[in-house]
Amino acid sequence: MFTLHPRLDADTLLLGTLPLCEVRLHRDSRYPWLLLIPMRAELTEIHHLNEADQAQLMRESCQLANLMEKTLDPDSMNIAALGNVVPQLHVHHVARFDGDDAWPGPIWGALPTRPYEESELAEAADFWRQALSAIDGFTPVA
Amino acid sequence: MFTLHPRLDADTLLLGTLPLCEVRLHRDSRYPWLLLIPMRAELTEIHHLNEADQAQLMRESCQLANLMEKTLDPDSMNIAALGNVVPQLHVHHVARFDGDDAWPGPIWGALPTRPYEESELAEAADFWRQALSAIDGFTPVA
Repeated sequence: MFTLHPRLDADTLLLGTLPLCEVRLHRDSRYPWLLLIPMRAELTEIHHLNEADQAQLMRESCQLANLMEKTLDPDSMNIAALGNVVPQLHVHHVARFDGDDAWPGPIWGALPTRPYEESELAEAADFWRQALSAIDGFTPVA
Repeated sequence: MFTLHPRLDADTLLLGTLPLCEVRLHRDSRYPWLLLIPMRAELTEIHHLNEADQAQLMRESCQLANLMEKTLDPDSMNIAALGNVVPQLHVHHVARFDGDDAWPGPIWGALPTRPYEESELAEAADFWRQALSAIDGFTPVA
């Protein structure tokens, strides 16, 4: 049974689901930062998924990256599965801008999290739930 | 026409090709670090590939990650497309170990490159070309 790692639960907010993945907003306001987490038990690596799920993850990742690109016009999209700290598979999707707090370095571990104000967090979640509804198969979770 | 970015050419060594990607060894000896570079012109993001190429990239990435895992038994595989410094799409595949030079942080920009000795580089390239020959469709380049 799929259960979310407590660290991912603490660091992110559930926006909704795609057929394979939970879509979550990272609580660090420094960067537009969404995560895809395949709803599969005991999963640590992309290549451990079966082939159908690998293809579906690619589809969902590209849909999400495309949406973030169209919405934000970033200088680069950072797509990454690391898992050195939290082993449960989670795929980062971060819109990066020349001049953002960590540019051009990677964001992970670079700077302390700068949490959203409560109202900003609700606003960001609303914004993304609205935007994500353009993706076929997205089900928002309020 | 596909041409390799000069920075990628300088930082890596061509091991061979898969149907979609060049497979390259990073010259930093700190980590087992291979790259997949889709042989498509003017490409910067995974989601800019057409759907067939996206699926093929997922296949090749999982074949490579699986090979690195089976060969090295790492604690984590880091798979990432960043492109903040070199815009041409390149997908990092890094076998990470608890206790490696950057653990548990990301490797990019963490530490200066520690080049292989010339003989070590040839040895590492031979090792990977041999190992990669287990993947259907791999063509080594000497």
